[in-house]
Amino acid sequence: MSVFTSVSDAELARWLQNYAIGRPVELRGISAGVQNSNFFVTTTLGRYVLTLFESIPRAELPYYLHLMAHLARHGLPVPAPIANRDNEYLDTLSERPAVLVMRLPGVSVMAPALQHCAKVGAMLAGLHLAGQSYGRRQDNPRGPAWRTATAEAVKRFLPAAEQRLLDDELAFQRGVDLAALPAGAIHADLFRDNVLWDGEHIGGVIDFYFAGYDALLFDVAVTVNDWCTEADGQLDPARCAALLAAYHAERPFTPAEHAAWPGVLRAAALRFWLSRAADFHLPRAGEMVLVKNPDEYRDILRLRIAGVPALDCGAGL
Amino acid sequence: MSVFTSVSDAELARWLQNYAIGRPVELRGISAGVQNSNFFVTTTLGRYVLTLFESIPRAELPYYLHLMAHLARHGLPVPAPIANRDNEYLDTLSERPAVLVMRLPGVSVMAPALQHCAKVGAMLAGLHLAGQSYGRRQDNPRGPAWRTATAEAVKRFLPAAEQRLLDDELAFQRGVDLAALPAGAIHADLFRDNVLWDGEHIGGVIDFYFAGYDALLFDVAVTVNDWCTEADGQLDPARCAALLAAYHAERPFTPAEHAAWPGVLRAAALRFWLSRAADFHLPRAGEMVLVKNPDEYRDILRLRIAGVPALDCGAGL
Repeated sequence: MSVFTSVSDAELARWLQNYAIGRPVELRGISAGVQNSNFFVTTTLGRYVLTLFESIPRAELPYYLHLMAHLARHGLPVPAPIANRDNEYLDTLSERPAVLVMRLPGVSVMAPALQHCAKVGAMLAGLHLAGQSYGRRQDNPRGPAWRTATAEAVKRFLPAAEQRLLDDELAFQRGVDLAALPAGAIHADLFRDNVLWDGEHIGGVIDFYFAGYDALLFDVAVTVNDWCTEADGQLDPARCAALLAAYHAERPFTPAEHAAWPGVLRAAALRFWLSRAADFHLPRAGEMVLVKNPDEYRDILRLRIAGVPALDCGAGL
Repeated sequence: MSVFTSVSDAELARWLQNYAIGRPVELRGISAGVQNSNFFVTTTLGRYVLTLFESIPRAELPYYLHLMAHLARHGLPVPAPIANRDNEYLDTLSERPAVLVMRLPGVSVMAPALQHCAKVGAMLAGLHLAGQSYGRRQDNPRGPAWRTATAEAVKRFLPAAEQRLLDDELAFQRGVDLAALPAGAIHADLFRDNVLWDGEHIGGVIDFYFAGYDALLFDVAVTVNDWCTEADGQLDPARCAALLAAYHAERPFTPAEHAAWPGVLRAAALRFWLSRAADFHLPRAGEMVLVKNPDEYRDILRLRIAGVPALDCGAGL
């Protein structure tokens, strides 16, 4: 999340008359994130987050908003979107598609211990189980088509060795059949900065705007690549075991998922190398934009190609 | 809320497999309240309240649950019901209709200051505004029919002077036309113990199981009779002014509401005198039941009959 578009106090006050949440008390931009403009909004009746969508097509937004609403109403701590007085989640502000969501308590933990990883694994399984009854379907926006197009766009910026790495991995991934694995609504970006810890509990899982229908195992791989990785990119077997055992206790893996795991970890690493490379080499204009280093995921990809622990990661599953 | 029906840890664990909120960690009965069995339920993924319905007919429950869901999705801090894996709010446990709702933060404030009353007034207006778009309709379960039946049931327990007070007030209320006033979904029981304060903010408005379609002004009167009343039952003009001004700022009163106010304050007092008299004289069996003193609302009714400040209550509206 970042701020690309400004909103004045007067514009906000006028716009909030579409809602039933009282009068604005405070409006503050949020600098984290890479895709939308985000603000903390405090009113006389509550605390919310306002998001203005800068790049996601309006027609794709209902999938995300209704997914968040669906997961929230299944009891999971995700940012429930707020309906306006016309009963609609999606509104317009500053000529952008706009939504208010509930603000959730907590702060990110960037150096997770084993118990954090276990709780994230259980939460991810809860999201996947609740998501099974979500009626809408929209493909993962960072799926194969995006991967091919983004690889083409960034390749010319890469040194020769990275171009070869990219070509080889794209060829390998064309042989990985994610469609054969259990699928459903996935978060697809469950990094440490998208989990808010309220003490020892998860107070919020945020930023669902990369969600989509895809293999559940891809979501597990994205999560493990972030939560269970050392500073040098190597997987930490103990954190892997904690996360995967907690996930597996709620949703046991299938034999096909066991077999696919090493390739899916690579697919998840490739996806973030590509998006970070695109953000780095092809930046968009903005007031407060946070661009992440693409080399981290290039290195993670190389390490996952070199070899990964079996899916049980020491959990003895 | 009280506990009439027991639930074992094993029963809860089995039942929670219908949901996507992880494994039970703690189950604890709640002693406050008069109508249902309530428990705090903590799981690996969150904190919830479990309610088993002891007396409300199952067919009437969807109105309450969907109202809570509607208000929650409009951004107000009410206990959102949790859907099970079949996407249903209403389930069954211990042979009772059962629902899980989100547990909200905060504690009741039993000696409210002016700023509490103002925030409650603004919140009540928010509930009324958001409720205008609620599509279901169910009459106030403590409306005229209930009033007549309950008065008949309790009258024989009352001393002669109270029987006369009751007869006279029932005759007076037959001349008060609530149906002529702006109506919608009302909470109808917004007492101090049904508002949770998280610091200076309202963290939760709870216990919607007396809600129904009725005059919005009746809800304001119920609220004022509790929040703005001294220990002797007299209205406190300053707290009245704070609550009503904050409400009025969000939803201005109509001339008809101004005219009806003294009679509606009496109707609201009568409703709680009657329900407490019924709970006192006609108690139900239960493990941990809290019965409130009916004399408090008998006295409030007498004082409201003796005279009340005009609707503006000093707010200068």
